Amino acid sequence: MGSCFLPLRAGVLGGALALACAGLFHAAPTARADEGMWPLHGLPAQVLKERYGFVPSADFVTRLQHASLRFSDGGSGSFVSERGLVLTNHHVARTFIYKLSTAQRDLLRDGFYAANLAAELPCPDAELSVLDSYVDVTERVRGGRAALGSAGEQRAAQAQLAAHAQRKQIIASLEKECSESTGLRCEVVTLYGGGQYFLYRYRRYSDVRLVFAPEEQAAAFGDEYDNFTYPRYALDFTLLRVYDKGRPLSVPQALHLRSQPAQEGELVLVSGHPASTNRGLTMAQLRYHRDVQNPIALRILEARLAALARYSATGAESARRASALRSQLENQLKRLRGQQAGLQSTAAIADKEREEAQLAATLKSRPELLASTASDATPFARIAAAYAALPGHTSRLQYGTLTPSKIASLAQLLVRYPVEIAKPNGSRYEEFRDSRLPSLRAQLTSPAPLYPDLEEAVLSDWLEQLRQALGERDALVQALLDGKSAAEAAQRAIRGTALFSVASRKALLESGSAAIQASQDPLLALVRRADGELRTLRAFYDERVQSVEVPAQAQIAQARFFAHGPSVYPDATFTLRLGFGRPLGYEKHTTLVPFQTLFYGLFERALSFRQKPPFELAPRIAQALQQGAIDPATPLNFVYTADTIGGNSGSPVVDRQGAVVGLNFDSNLEKLPNRYYYVAEEAGSRAIAVHSVAILAALERIYGAAPLATELRGTPAITP
Amino acid sequence: MGSCFLPLRAGVLGGALALACAGLFHAAPTARADEGMWPLHGLPAQVLKERYGFVPSADFVTRLQHASLRFSDGGSGSFVSERGLVLTNHHVARTFIYKLSTAQRDLLRDGFYAANLAAELPCPDAELSVLDSYVDVTERVRGGRAALGSAGEQRAAQAQLAAHAQRKQIIASLEKECSESTGLRCEVVTLYGGGQYFLYRYRRYSDVRLVFAPEEQAAAFGDEYDNFTYPRYALDFTLLRVYDKGRPLSVPQALHLRSQPAQEGELVLVSGHPASTNRGLTMAQLRYHRDVQNPIALRILEARLAALARYSATGAESARRASALRSQLENQLKRLRGQQAGLQSTAAIADKEREEAQLAATLKSRPELLASTASDATPFARIAAAYAALPGHTSRLQYGTLTPSKIASLAQLLVRYPVEIAKPNGSRYEEFRDSRLPSLRAQLTSPAPLYPDLEEAVLSDWLEQLRQALGERDALVQALLDGKSAAEAAQRAIRGTALFSVASRKALLESGSAAIQASQDPLLALVRRADGELRTLRAFYDERVQSVEVPAQAQIAQARFFAHGPSVYPDATFTLRLGFGRPLGYEKHTTLVPFQTLFYGLFERALSFRQKPPFELAPRIAQALQQGAIDPATPLNFVYTADTIGGNSGSPVVDRQGAVVGLNFDSNLEKLPNRYYYVAEEAGSRAIAVHSVAILAALERIYGAAPLATELRGTPAITP
Repeated sequence: MGSCFLPLRAGVLGGALALACAGLFHAAPTARADEGMWPLHGLPAQVLKERYGFVPSADFVTRLQHASLRFSDGGSGSFVSERGLVLTNHHVARTFIYKLSTAQRDLLRDGFYAANLAAELPCPDAELSVLDSYVDVTERVRGGRAALGSAGEQRAAQAQLAAHAQRKQIIASLEKECSESTGLRCEVVTLYGGGQYFLYRYRRYSDVRLVFAPEEQAAAFGDEYDNFTYPRYALDFTLLRVYDKGRPLSVPQALHLRSQPAQEGELVLVSGHPASTNRGLTMAQLRYHRDVQNPIALRILEARLAALARYSATGAESARRASALRSQLENQLKRLRGQQAGLQSTAAIADKEREEAQLAATLKSRPELLASTASDATPFARIAAAYAALPGHTSRLQYGTLTPSKIASLAQLLVRYPVEIAKPNGSRYEEFRDSRLPSLRAQLTSPAPLYPDLEEAVLSDWLEQLRQALGERDALVQALLDGKSAAEAAQRAIRGTALFSVASRKALLESGSAAIQASQDPLLALVRRADGELRTLRAFYDERVQSVEVPAQAQIAQARFFAHGPSVYPDATFTLRLGFGRPLGYEKHTTLVPFQTLFYGLFERALSFRQKPPFELAPRIAQALQQGAIDPATPLNFVYTADTIGGNSGSPVVDRQGAVVGLNFDSNLEKLPNRYYYVAEEAGSRAIAVHSVAILAALERIYGAAPLATELRGTPAITP
Repeated sequence: MGSCFLPLRAGVLGGALALACAGLFHAAPTARADEGMWPLHGLPAQVLKERYGFVPSADFVTRLQHASLRFSDGGSGSFVSERGLVLTNHHVARTFIYKLSTAQRDLLRDGFYAANLAAELPCPDAELSVLDSYVDVTERVRGGRAALGSAGEQRAAQAQLAAHAQRKQIIASLEKECSESTGLRCEVVTLYGGGQYFLYRYRRYSDVRLVFAPEEQAAAFGDEYDNFTYPRYALDFTLLRVYDKGRPLSVPQALHLRSQPAQEGELVLVSGHPASTNRGLTMAQLRYHRDVQNPIALRILEARLAALARYSATGAESARRASALRSQLENQLKRLRGQQAGLQSTAAIADKEREEAQLAATLKSRPELLASTASDATPFARIAAAYAALPGHTSRLQYGTLTPSKIASLAQLLVRYPVEIAKPNGSRYEEFRDSRLPSLRAQLTSPAPLYPDLEEAVLSDWLEQLRQALGERDALVQALLDGKSAAEAAQRAIRGTALFSVASRKALLESGSAAIQASQDPLLALVRRADGELRTLRAFYDERVQSVEVPAQAQIAQARFFAHGPSVYPDATFTLRLGFGRPLGYEKHTTLVPFQTLFYGLFERALSFRQKPPFELAPRIAQALQQGAIDPATPLNFVYTADTIGGNSGSPVVDRQGAVVGLNFDSNLEKLPNRYYYVAEEAGSRAIAVHSVAILAALERIYGAAPLATELRGTPAITP
């Protein structure tokens, strides 16, 4: 994973390692595949130069940084006009559009276009962030740990726990200091599983309005069948606008869409927020994922989808209400299946074993890399020991949550809120730290619609799943069910709760601990009964797993730095990363897959199926076809070789001038195992993007939204 | 393989087995998958009725029989007008078109259309056959064997050899008698590896003229990349006309093309000449194919293609000359790779093992089934013993042929001709039997072009392959090379031979044994030197393998009849078979593949590749696209579930009224293992056809050949 790249900024390690890296430099291959999700403070300058003759200027990097957006629920976007216009995927903005829809006005089904600013629709719960700046805080976070590590008399495990607690306190106080002094949202980011810590400062926007969305059938043509496949024919884009004090936000560093289509072979860069990879896991962790955790997670997803299907079958409006959750779960299921298939590849696992053996040998030959912990065991052994005890607890860890039900999750936040904020900032659960409270309160008081019948169906299923998986006698199950069946317990809690009212939630939030403890609301009562067990589970995972993993992974990261140089890329952490590559077709099953698709292919796929759902043309596209309004040779989607993962959805794909040539929206099946390891382009692994020219043509030729196309091209001409 | 279907005609076995079959009938599943390549004398009437409510009338079957054509070099076709028009694949008629082409007039590249009868081009070497009638001769062929089997004193192996020789003599005399009494071409067909023998009588046509061919780029769009893949976009059709005494043959039972496209799910039947399957092989034979024979065969194909690529690279005309052989070898290679992949499926092999164990148990419980042979060993054991000795000989068996070089093959026929015809008819090599001599003489005196430089390149490569595979000291290699290098030997033989002249070959053919033996022609000399070794090899295979296999397989067939009823279908033998199924899409890699493609998809595939070869549009199609002459929603290809294999190329796909809805031309990759076992439709195994409506639309809208479309539709309106 990664050879010795020269970072734009100096690494965090001392001179000895930097020299070792320089020594390795000539031996290691310098022009490698398009691997890596690179933080801006560690770009692979050497590779970009050698492979593509590209030296990004500081301006180029800063512009991408300030134009790139993070969606708080996951996903990426970018500013694409100086007047705050945001380009993202339809499936990223889907929750906004869902919340703006009703049975009478179904914006998901019908699409939406605001012909002027006044018509743009404010999105409930929207939270978009831009990375303003960042600073390396590794030494401050590590300093705490080193002091504890030398405590000597304490037993190793206790020392580890104390160090873990202290790290969390330092991180909380760093975040709080930063938020108070800058007014920005500050997060300490753990990179390399603990090898580096950075403080990221975000500018946060919550006045976000819907400007344009195609029909969902155009955005998600082929639905779950075509999800994660290629060739693909999806207009998966949506336009939002960020407002500041009631006016479109001024964004001088916005990107613009290129009018010439992406060409096969040209350098493209993708700037976004990949959510999570697990490429740094040890063999013990990988085997746990493969053999224990993923099989349970797959069963849970399958059961949740089955329950949702039963609910959806009760009527068209039920199906509409369930659609957001359904598409989210189906996506998760298909992705996890692909990831699990990757873990079941014996060749890939053999590579991982080889790498681990090499790192272990490095650690053995360099005992100084291990000096910073109290334990004598190798980090691989410590992780293995922690994971050896896990399988007996996995079911409770996986089922021990209320997140499947939205309303129960809100109830849980309400119950915990007064308890947590009474604690010192550094001792709270992360989501209650001072730096996170504005987001949390917005979430609790969101006016977004919640549907009692859907919530009841979901909660009832979830309680029944828990009962079956953990058994009647399990303490958590007994606390949740309180002697009733799952259906009765859910019915009582959901039908009797006042929490569907925003005003009630707001009142409770302000009422303080005693009032919440005393409330007779049956949903609050259910959550209160279970809270002790759920907290115990969380503590178990924190103390028995995370407190071991973090320092062990930090040591493994040291070994990696030593072996490969300081600029191997860290696992994805839902922070801004740059990927690079080129549009490129591939070989599959003896034949070639073209790098791009055209509208011709969309018409082929729809009409060869005789428009059998989910392969029917969206109404406006069918109309444009019939009227000859759209040239079928217009490029539609393309694949490219950059290293991306979930969370990169909505990322702009830019050329070497920074012009947007595409909008990332998916990966193909071949690429899914890349959660656990990089899948080489020779294996047909590809990211998938909407061509910018498809977006422009759709706005102009299909949706009668030419002014937006003009704004996207960079000659602002909209009338307020 | 096959349950107990009621044949249209009574089976060949006695009452006991027929009763056993009736007994099994209700236990076996009656509505099965669309499996089987069924001879007309054993159609699965019960399945067709239960699965599709279809009872083919005698007229329906007879019409298909008399409209179905066999091409002597492999491949199928059908009469599609009362005036002798023949529809087949472009790739089946390709050798005709190739032979009619020159550097100046490249009909493969440019296509061809004869606007009237006078313009139709006579095809050299054409030989098309229609199955006139057939008769069961099992008892006559078996009678001979039974007499020998009871000889008693002879050792088993000798008895087996003698029986084998006698069977061949009986077959030769049956064929000769029949040809002489009917004037037809007669062939005894061995079914079930020897379980049944039928005498087939063919009507043979050699005045065949080219009427229409699209550009090869239209017929074989995507070339080797797309070969055996789907979705597919190929206009793989050609029209020929059969003449009789200088006038178009009158064919009252000709088929016609349906103007309504094939619908997903409707019953279709495919009538053609599947060349060969090996589904009845024992485990010993399968393992030999998988572990010994196929790996060598793959190496040979790869090496031959590499040599051809070197030759083709010497210039455009060389590439044209090599193109026929190249596409034939590439097709063989891709197919054999798919077949070998099927043999490497552990699940499939496990099924085979299970079936063999069941058959062995059946034979054990029914010793009367084994009574007809001299040996006490089971047929499985006898085959296993014969194959155990084979691997040491495989290289010589595989390389011991001159067929790669066309001119050397002709030379070999010339050298052997006087020797063989001097023998009694029943003792000759099959290809020299009296019933085959007309075809053989036509082949030897064909005016089709032969290219000395191509022949030299091919022979030189082949001799070098032999030298490397068998070694310098091998007797065959020494005989062929005569102390020279492969290049020198090939150069000397090819540059010095007179056999490129048709007149020379004709003269030699008439000159008799002494003249041929005495000829100084260096190619004849080379062939004469090697003939002893090649004959020894052939005798080895005949005596050590075939003489064991045939009676053993006959016994295994008895066990199959006993277990499954008399109408399990026999392995394909390049004789007329009926398959059935329905146009049907399938699921692949999580998404759906539509049952059909349209011209939209052709345009998508060409233009998304920016017409990079081999994905460029044929000139006439590009022109039709530009002029808007063809509706892109016109159906192009479709897939269907019938059981077909190589040799079915060009078969008509008809509906239940006998109207042609498609033209079979390929199978997808999923289906390739079906040489060795039936691949179920659930695995995505599909045959691929050109839609009849695509053929009609192409003639009318793209190629300006509307009169042919009219003739194909069945309202003859051509003007002579």
